Amino acid sequence: MPDFPTAQDAEDAFYDAIEERDPERLRAVWEDSPDIACLLPMQPLLIGERVHDALAPVMSGEIPLDIQVRHLRWVNAGDVAIHYVEERVHLPGRPPQPPVYATNVFRRSATGWHLILHQNAPTPPPPGAMAGGMGPPGGMA
Amino acid sequence: MPDFPTAQDAEDAFYDAIEERDPERLRAVWEDSPDIACLLPMQPLLIGERVHDALAPVMSGEIPLDIQVRHLRWVNAGDVAIHYVEERVHLPGRPPQPPVYATNVFRRSATGWHLILHQNAPTPPPPGAMAGGMGPPGGMA
Repeated sequence: MPDFPTAQDAEDAFYDAIEERDPERLRAVWEDSPDIACLLPMQPLLIGERVHDALAPVMSGEIPLDIQVRHLRWVNAGDVAIHYVEERVHLPGRPPQPPVYATNVFRRSATGWHLILHQNAPTPPPPGAMAGGMGPPGGMA
Repeated sequence: MPDFPTAQDAEDAFYDAIEERDPERLRAVWEDSPDIACLLPMQPLLIGERVHDALAPVMSGEIPLDIQVRHLRWVNAGDVAIHYVEERVHLPGRPPQPPVYATNVFRRSATGWHLILHQNAPTPPPPGAMAGGMGPPGGMA
């Protein structure tokens, strides 16, 4: 199993593992602890081992994925790092998907940096598009 | 300005401030730094001072809010704490809103614990309801 000397190394391995649909590599990116969590829109909050279970279908797909990641902001907080990114997932032969925001939180331990939270958020609709019914202020807090 | 001896104290003050529409109290919950971020569904990623600007309309409302917060999970990571909660916002005379997940990340400094990230996520639709078009696996990574 690789150790990740920086949070960015772990993040690069995370997206590489998904692109390559490599479940072992993906698992190695997550911290080996019950603390890990994954939160995807309209999906139940996933904690601990359920994170791996829920990602299994994604990893078993056969269509290659191309994920473009744009870094928006990094916050370094000692042994925790928070990365705000924008993801664009490209599937061959499919129309482009709208981008999503992702928040990736990494924690440093004796074995290096690992992912403890992956959370996605829908981005604003393009100008002129319907905004949908979920936006704040009603949904704010 | 109050200091918050625990992350939970800061979280309690966060929701109290929103319920009471008290912008000064709300501002005091956030860390006084350019690192703070707020991510609400279908909204642009807000960083730093823009967090306060974006929350101003919520705080200027006159309808009392009743926010029920259910704790789902806490992750303690040294000087950082991650709280996963479910929020239910009740507005008098309005039908109940669907719950939302929230991820609140707090950081400890010399002046106590403060909020550095508030991120919401839509919860799964109730059984039998339309799931919408945003779910994984297509939207996963």
